[in-house]
Amino acid sequence: MSETLRLIMPQWQGGNNPPYYFGSKLLAWLAPEQKGIPEIEVPIEPYDGTELTMENGVAGRSALLRQLESATKILEAYQPKRVIVFGGDCLVSQAPFAYLNEKYNGNLGVLWLDAHPDVSTPEMHNHEHAMVLGNLLGKGDADFAAHVKVPLNPELVMYGGLEEMTESETVLVNSLNLRSAGASDLADTSQPVLDWIAENHIEYLAIHFDLDVLDPSLFRSLLFSQPGGLPIDASKGKMTLAQIARLIKDVSRETDVVCLSIAEHLPWDAINLHNFLAEMPIFQREPFL
Amino acid sequence: MSETLRLIMPQWQGGNNPPYYFGSKLLAWLAPEQKGIPEIEVPIEPYDGTELTMENGVAGRSALLRQLESATKILEAYQPKRVIVFGGDCLVSQAPFAYLNEKYNGNLGVLWLDAHPDVSTPEMHNHEHAMVLGNLLGKGDADFAAHVKVPLNPELVMYGGLEEMTESETVLVNSLNLRSAGASDLADTSQPVLDWIAENHIEYLAIHFDLDVLDPSLFRSLLFSQPGGLPIDASKGKMTLAQIARLIKDVSRETDVVCLSIAEHLPWDAINLHNFLAEMPIFQREPFL
Repeated sequence: MSETLRLIMPQWQGGNNPPYYFGSKLLAWLAPEQKGIPEIEVPIEPYDGTELTMENGVAGRSALLRQLESATKILEAYQPKRVIVFGGDCLVSQAPFAYLNEKYNGNLGVLWLDAHPDVSTPEMHNHEHAMVLGNLLGKGDADFAAHVKVPLNPELVMYGGLEEMTESETVLVNSLNLRSAGASDLADTSQPVLDWIAENHIEYLAIHFDLDVLDPSLFRSLLFSQPGGLPIDASKGKMTLAQIARLIKDVSRETDVVCLSIAEHLPWDAINLHNFLAEMPIFQREPFL
Repeated sequence: MSETLRLIMPQWQGGNNPPYYFGSKLLAWLAPEQKGIPEIEVPIEPYDGTELTMENGVAGRSALLRQLESATKILEAYQPKRVIVFGGDCLVSQAPFAYLNEKYNGNLGVLWLDAHPDVSTPEMHNHEHAMVLGNLLGKGDADFAAHVKVPLNPELVMYGGLEEMTESETVLVNSLNLRSAGASDLADTSQPVLDWIAENHIEYLAIHFDLDVLDPSLFRSLLFSQPGGLPIDASKGKMTLAQIARLIKDVSRETDVVCLSIAEHLPWDAINLHNFLAEMPIFQREPFL
């Protein structure tokens, strides 16, 4: 039985943005092949052209809950020690992190690499992907927090690359008292995170890597980099892929990284080229005589 | 026997730029699946970390000639009526266009969608991808032109989206007297190309689509859009994917498009993410006990 599970979770409803679906598929394709490691796709309701409805203040709430349950069932069936997640919107991290924190008896460390704190509530935001870390801490959105059997220990949660927050986010994050190292703290060293790992004797670490922690002028497959897109009123990341790679390699030497969950991949050029090619008549010509 | 052949040609030596290799593989992945249509990869010498040497003024000349011969042999073996090419640098169009012009008795029409004229000679340029259309016209680089059994008829060649040229390119293009419609001519209509097709009774059309005909601020998977890259002293394209799609669909109704060759795909984010993931220790953990 494999110790690792690869989970493709092309969930898009958490950000109410259908292109996350394609982003997840491409992300899995870009990852190294691993012979003998199961790769399972969580069933996600595809976008059918109709708008998601608001359900208790959250777009697509019931679909998201069904998908959370599906992911949880798959994890419980496979019982992996490690999980690699190809998202999808940020909410894709909820099922694996909750599963792993239960598996590791509430001792899971969580490094949350993200420009945004993801601890909102339905009163503050109508997209569930902004609440995922709150849910995992037993707060956030009660419907989703109810699916977390063992909430994360706040001392074992650390942010990396967090940017300027809204006023209400600041209040929430301060009340949670979570450790944090900004992009400039981590630009040349992983020490702030290594110190936290050592102080807390973290043996098992899950890493949430929201790609929007990256500088959108250097990595353009992000919500903030849509070609011709409208400006988005949210903080942009300032980190580089090289910094994230160094950070993850450094922590992997000090603790057992039991999850790498990558989220918010929006590869605009690939999506546009894929759609372009799908329209090209030459692909539809066969068979002809 | 299939009438169409899909040719993956991850050639990079023609632009002396190894990322073209990955660009070709991703492009093929992005294309619609076609059941029953053969998809063949031309053997390309991979980049091994050593610089290409200059051979008679062209980087990688001997490898490029070997690869041109390989592509030609594959085409001659399959004898397709139509070819879809996933490049690779611009030189990937030479073998299929030469093959098709011979097959269609010198009557192949060629629509060359490109910001650059690709009719240089080894005296002007040291990358073979800048000479491919010259070679096909029986000019360009003599070693490569010698592989074109039936040179293209210049009256059956038309540029789309050509931008400002160097002085020596202008002299050459003027001497060839090729038809041309610029980005602004084609922005809202395909008529200049449709007129040329009608006037010349073009029955079989090959389309070379150098992605750099696109505006690099809207499509960033181009040489001109490398994140953190140095400025490149060459004209940038001004077209959009939507305009190219409309143009190709319009011409496909008036003539038989027997080749679509897509070149110069440099998906920086995908390449960087692929390399990042390859470094992540979690992918190397298995098996463990």
